[in-house]
Amino acid sequence: MSHPHAELGPPPPLPDGGLRVVALGGLGEVGRNMTVFEHDGRLLVVDCGVLFPEDAQPGVDLILPDFDYLRDRLDDIDAIVLTHGHEDHIGGVPYLLRLKPDIPLVGSKLTLAFIEAKLAEHRITPYTLEVREGQSERLGPFDCEFIAVNHSIPDALAVVIRSRAGVVLHTGDFKMDQLPLDGRITDLRAFARLGDEGVDLFLVDSTNAEVPGFTVPERDIAPAIDRVFQTAERRVIVASFASHVHRIQQVLDAAAEHRRKVAFVGRSMVRNMGLARELGYLHVPEGLVVDVKQLDDLRDDQVVLVCTGSQGEPMAALSRMANRDHQIRVGPGDTVLMASSLIPGNENAVYRVINGLMRWGAKVVHKGNAMVHVSGHASAGELLYCYNILRPSNVMPVHGEWRHLRANADLAVATGVPQDQVVLAEDGTVVDLVDGRARIVGAVPCGYVYVDGTTVGDVDESSLKDRRILRDEGFISVVVVVDSVTGKVTGGPEIHARGFGADDSVFDQVRPLVEAALDRAQTEGVADAHQLRQVVRRTVGRWVSDRFRRRPMIIPMVVEV
Amino acid sequence: MSHPHAELGPPPPLPDGGLRVVALGGLGEVGRNMTVFEHDGRLLVVDCGVLFPEDAQPGVDLILPDFDYLRDRLDDIDAIVLTHGHEDHIGGVPYLLRLKPDIPLVGSKLTLAFIEAKLAEHRITPYTLEVREGQSERLGPFDCEFIAVNHSIPDALAVVIRSRAGVVLHTGDFKMDQLPLDGRITDLRAFARLGDEGVDLFLVDSTNAEVPGFTVPERDIAPAIDRVFQTAERRVIVASFASHVHRIQQVLDAAAEHRRKVAFVGRSMVRNMGLARELGYLHVPEGLVVDVKQLDDLRDDQVVLVCTGSQGEPMAALSRMANRDHQIRVGPGDTVLMASSLIPGNENAVYRVINGLMRWGAKVVHKGNAMVHVSGHASAGELLYCYNILRPSNVMPVHGEWRHLRANADLAVATGVPQDQVVLAEDGTVVDLVDGRARIVGAVPCGYVYVDGTTVGDVDESSLKDRRILRDEGFISVVVVVDSVTGKVTGGPEIHARGFGADDSVFDQVRPLVEAALDRAQTEGVADAHQLRQVVRRTVGRWVSDRFRRRPMIIPMVVEV
Repeated sequence: MSHPHAELGPPPPLPDGGLRVVALGGLGEVGRNMTVFEHDGRLLVVDCGVLFPEDAQPGVDLILPDFDYLRDRLDDIDAIVLTHGHEDHIGGVPYLLRLKPDIPLVGSKLTLAFIEAKLAEHRITPYTLEVREGQSERLGPFDCEFIAVNHSIPDALAVVIRSRAGVVLHTGDFKMDQLPLDGRITDLRAFARLGDEGVDLFLVDSTNAEVPGFTVPERDIAPAIDRVFQTAERRVIVASFASHVHRIQQVLDAAAEHRRKVAFVGRSMVRNMGLARELGYLHVPEGLVVDVKQLDDLRDDQVVLVCTGSQGEPMAALSRMANRDHQIRVGPGDTVLMASSLIPGNENAVYRVINGLMRWGAKVVHKGNAMVHVSGHASAGELLYCYNILRPSNVMPVHGEWRHLRANADLAVATGVPQDQVVLAEDGTVVDLVDGRARIVGAVPCGYVYVDGTTVGDVDESSLKDRRILRDEGFISVVVVVDSVTGKVTGGPEIHARGFGADDSVFDQVRPLVEAALDRAQTEGVADAHQLRQVVRRTVGRWVSDRFRRRPMIIPMVVEV
Repeated sequence: MSHPHAELGPPPPLPDGGLRVVALGGLGEVGRNMTVFEHDGRLLVVDCGVLFPEDAQPGVDLILPDFDYLRDRLDDIDAIVLTHGHEDHIGGVPYLLRLKPDIPLVGSKLTLAFIEAKLAEHRITPYTLEVREGQSERLGPFDCEFIAVNHSIPDALAVVIRSRAGVVLHTGDFKMDQLPLDGRITDLRAFARLGDEGVDLFLVDSTNAEVPGFTVPERDIAPAIDRVFQTAERRVIVASFASHVHRIQQVLDAAAEHRRKVAFVGRSMVRNMGLARELGYLHVPEGLVVDVKQLDDLRDDQVVLVCTGSQGEPMAALSRMANRDHQIRVGPGDTVLMASSLIPGNENAVYRVINGLMRWGAKVVHKGNAMVHVSGHASAGELLYCYNILRPSNVMPVHGEWRHLRANADLAVATGVPQDQVVLAEDGTVVDLVDGRARIVGAVPCGYVYVDGTTVGDVDESSLKDRRILRDEGFISVVVVVDSVTGKVTGGPEIHARGFGADDSVFDQVRPLVEAALDRAQTEGVADAHQLRQVVRRTVGRWVSDRFRRRPMIIPMVVEV
């Protein structure tokens, strides 16, 4: 397999007629999916998503793809194709459009509705081109054709990109539910036609490549949902993703069947379900959905709440219910249905919520004890179907950590794609499709860009390193005042600590050591603030390491008066 | 079910002849298992383990049970019974013995060997009493009988505690592998005899109560291990727990079969396997195990490394191999076998290691893609056997989060234990067994006690709250120098930030605001350092919130000269 492991340099110029593929996100991680295609000096972007931080990136709100590769070439971008409306595919768009607001967005009706709602919050009105399955559009030198795929959000599309370099198929995220609720299956007939035509490069969703067999149909969770409604004594509280229209549809259907009223809770849930209903993706019987304020007039056994918070997000309604910090006071007889996945890394937070709800007496139904969730991604069995019907010349697994990409590559090889025509690339790896062969030719810088509060990119790796030290060890600050004329120490050392976990009185032990060290330094003629700070840092650092076996951040400050 | 949810006050005095049960750990969490039994004014402790911190407890090394309940009653403790040698059952012993080193430890041969090795590191030589299954010992007013149970470490025991209050059975941790490697099954015949005698209170391991069916036998993973050895082209690197003697035995057997040599890597692995071998629990064919230094003389396909790090611990050999920060340079052809569970909360760390190893070309076999791990705990099916053979009068689920305890309680009820004789207790809940009925009668304070470096209990909830703020937001410190005679500001404000993620030059904007606020305050006669700090905190806090929508810790410092 082609493998980017050697140190890769900057790529050579793209040969005439070739197609360059650079993923700026989504390879080596689950999230911030973004792929840039280049041909004849023009660029096409497919998706622009966000990644949610994990424990090594504390306090960060979002992680963006690194747009540096595009910064000088914004005028070359003909369009941003959005395959579907999930955050990890559209969440980065507002930040890219801040750099150039008039790049056209191309996507299906629901996808555009979701991104336009998001952009409105950023006060951006985009140029859009709505497309649907079967449609073709010429976007600069790229001939694009859109193909229906089935996923955990309606109206998802795969995109075929034709150019002089050949035929490329990018699946976006997909699975192959053969009995989807909306009847809109992944268009294998179109895949077959492409296979006949010849696919030169196949970029394919790897998320579930490690999972053997086939992803179960969405409708197979209906019995478990029905059982919740049949046995619930009081309220039914459903937590799910705010974009999972079909999941919510099943909840609405069950609610109607069991003569309950439904209220949506949480900004994103209310907004998205409103849009989905308006555009005809969510079917709501007249009078079924009520405002949350109307719940007071209903008995508990007539009520369904649909909210976010299925990943244990501390500010979401569900977490607050678990902490009794919400107007809905969950108790015995209430049933909480967590109709969602459990994203790796969220286990502690999710179990904290489940334990909290159960401790108050609620029954909690979740994927660990009932069939209330199915994945949105194709498992290994489905991927094999795709490889066999497409018979692609070259394969590039996308969307996943290394283990997912590697498992997907192995599936391609198992169906007969030659080892050296399977490209295992990472974010920033440059892959050129030239004369029908895809090859790794170099790499471009591709870092993490952090959004924190209103800032983009200000929080960097060194800030995060500081945060990790502060998180694990806290800090000790030492202030010394120096006369700016004589250079003599005239005040301090004042010593304080936070997150260190000792009474400040403990520093009475080190204060004389600092004073002595400063005296010694000044006797030796040291007056420079930088050197004095070093003396303080060394003295306090050694003391705290010997005395406590810990390494808090030491912050020496020298103030001149 | 009895349920501690109402606010519980301090317990009344224990009625004469009654037995009091207080768990100081292990109820509502997985770890720091510790239960205190009281009868006739004397105490018996069963287990004294540690809990490993999660993300809400950053930087902490270990979490201990809260010994406050025992602090004035150390002389009343007749013994500490240790059911088996896992950290979550013995790890707290050194800290309890620091308070009183002569409390006798009672346990099986391997359990005592493990705790003695640990205590030696703390320079404590304990009083011990070795017991084995079938044996009975009078410990103060407690008649104890020890029963063999099967678990993921050899030589585990359940304990029967007889007193005038009745017969109590505490399972410790257990499962019911019917074909264990050492032939030592959980002694159901003894359970049956106890059932005939009448069990008044049954304390039972809840860890796997949510898991339907039966835990698969340990030996069922042999084929998957064998397959690893059959297909491995170069090195085999096995990561597992340093206490899982039977798991390692299976690896040794496969290595011998496939004519490879084995080296143990890592302090705890080397130490524990040495002890297990010495005491006859690990059977090592002559010449099979070599020192890691001897590996250089062997071809890669003659080598097996057995190491720790299966939970993604960043300092363990396996993580360092994944980061190419270890003398073993993993590459194509190497196979890494993670023969272990994936403890919830460790997912990100473990997947980081798996991705890292795969990225270097290694094959990684883990519980996600092969049958290379079975749990050490009884699943729901096994627990039902226990309830039915014991027919206990009262049940108290132990060892688990609320969801586990609740699932276990439901199993008890399903077998016919009356709802109100199932006691759902939390850490600190006081349960009295009087006249054959177990009832919640109160609660004692029971907090988390944190070990960090050499300190025990210095790091408290407020330090952790500080660490969480510092982790997510960093801090901004502002130093002002004040003349101690006139009270006038004579130096500063000097402003610095760490973990905040902005160039210090950004503070040029807020410095004049701070100066103006201080001027205003001083004009109004404010000279007190505390008030000046408040002025600084408010001014900087408001600016940073407006400008960045963030809430770093603001540290105002006023130094008087």
